[in-house]
Amino acid sequence: MSTAARRRPGRPPGEGGGARDAIATAARRQFSEQGFDGPSLRGIAAEAGVDPSLVKHHFGDKQRLFLTVVDFPVDYEVLLPRLRSGPESQIGSRLAATVVGVLGDPDTRTRFLGLLRAASSHPAAAAVLRERITDALLEPLAASLGHEEPRLRAAMVMSQVVGIAVARHIVELEPLTATESERIAGLLAPVLQHYLTGDLSGEGLRPMGSDIP
Amino acid sequence: MSTAARRRPGRPPGEGGGARDAIATAARRQFSEQGFDGPSLRGIAAEAGVDPSLVKHHFGDKQRLFLTVVDFPVDYEVLLPRLRSGPESQIGSRLAATVVGVLGDPDTRTRFLGLLRAASSHPAAAAVLRERITDALLEPLAASLGHEEPRLRAAMVMSQVVGIAVARHIVELEPLTATESERIAGLLAPVLQHYLTGDLSGEGLRPMGSDIP
Repeated sequence: MSTAARRRPGRPPGEGGGARDAIATAARRQFSEQGFDGPSLRGIAAEAGVDPSLVKHHFGDKQRLFLTVVDFPVDYEVLLPRLRSGPESQIGSRLAATVVGVLGDPDTRTRFLGLLRAASSHPAAAAVLRERITDALLEPLAASLGHEEPRLRAAMVMSQVVGIAVARHIVELEPLTATESERIAGLLAPVLQHYLTGDLSGEGLRPMGSDIP
Repeated sequence: MSTAARRRPGRPPGEGGGARDAIATAARRQFSEQGFDGPSLRGIAAEAGVDPSLVKHHFGDKQRLFLTVVDFPVDYEVLLPRLRSGPESQIGSRLAATVVGVLGDPDTRTRFLGLLRAASSHPAAAAVLRERITDALLEPLAASLGHEEPRLRAAMVMSQVVGIAVARHIVELEPLTATESERIAGLLAPVLQHYLTGDLSGEGLRPMGSDIP
């Protein structure tokens, strides 16, 4: 087990920081694949190779364990300025690249999909998605651009972001599963650009070469 | 129970067609709220007020019950021509109105969300979404318009459709939950229009009033 390598030398498995790490790793994997309801604390303890009492000792109840291990930590103080740097006309491209990066990294993809799967049955997971991504990142980003209705813009961005994650990784829709990440980012960019900076009156977006003036 | 009204007069509850209807109603409700794994055949039988053996008698195993009651029946012979009638420049508006209609009707919303929730843990539900909506409706629609890469266009449309459903009804993102359906349709229309008919090279969509030529 890879977690064994991270235990401090001389500590028996199942005790102290090693047990906490092993429980977190097992819990993250099980929650991400099965949502909130599927895994049991006993099954997580078994995969971690520890006594079930250590799960409660380190993490309290199931909901607290879930929120600890499947939380979505983002360094907003780095990410928000990075997204805001550069021309506003390219904000959709920068955000699309970030989204594709999150979904391309195994750790952040696992966390994001785990939250999405759990959100179906568990309001706490939906709350993490709302608070960590929409409230803390997308809405401040939209507000900083100065266009009207920043909350609605952030919510529409979030709808397309969760949609591409669900379509590609949960519904496993062809040809999205076989499409390169760079292409996905290129497909998302103009739509995210529109939601963040476009005219939301329903006439604000048009295909190039269209016959509509 | 409303199902009682649909039973044939003179038949005792729990027998024949009345039992089948009652089981289907209970199963649809439980699968839609809890996904595939949550409900048990015993719990569904209990809610329907029938003996558990009748569930197997009428529907076979749990997967067949799920696919029977949470299937997504669409009359493509009516819907596809209706979407295709009218100018191509308004296809996004017509499709957005259809999407909002599906999510506004309690029966179709329950089925669609039930499939989405179950897709996380059950490949058969993901397959229903792919086959019934993308393969049978969105891809033929995209192909009929004659633009390149119709499968990719249909998949991007589906990503935004599942995304608005998840964001509004599962993650329950403000202000989408409180936004009128007509407004949601107006927000989706230009994006669906772009995915179906726009330039997918990454430069095909621009906000009106933008400084990009």
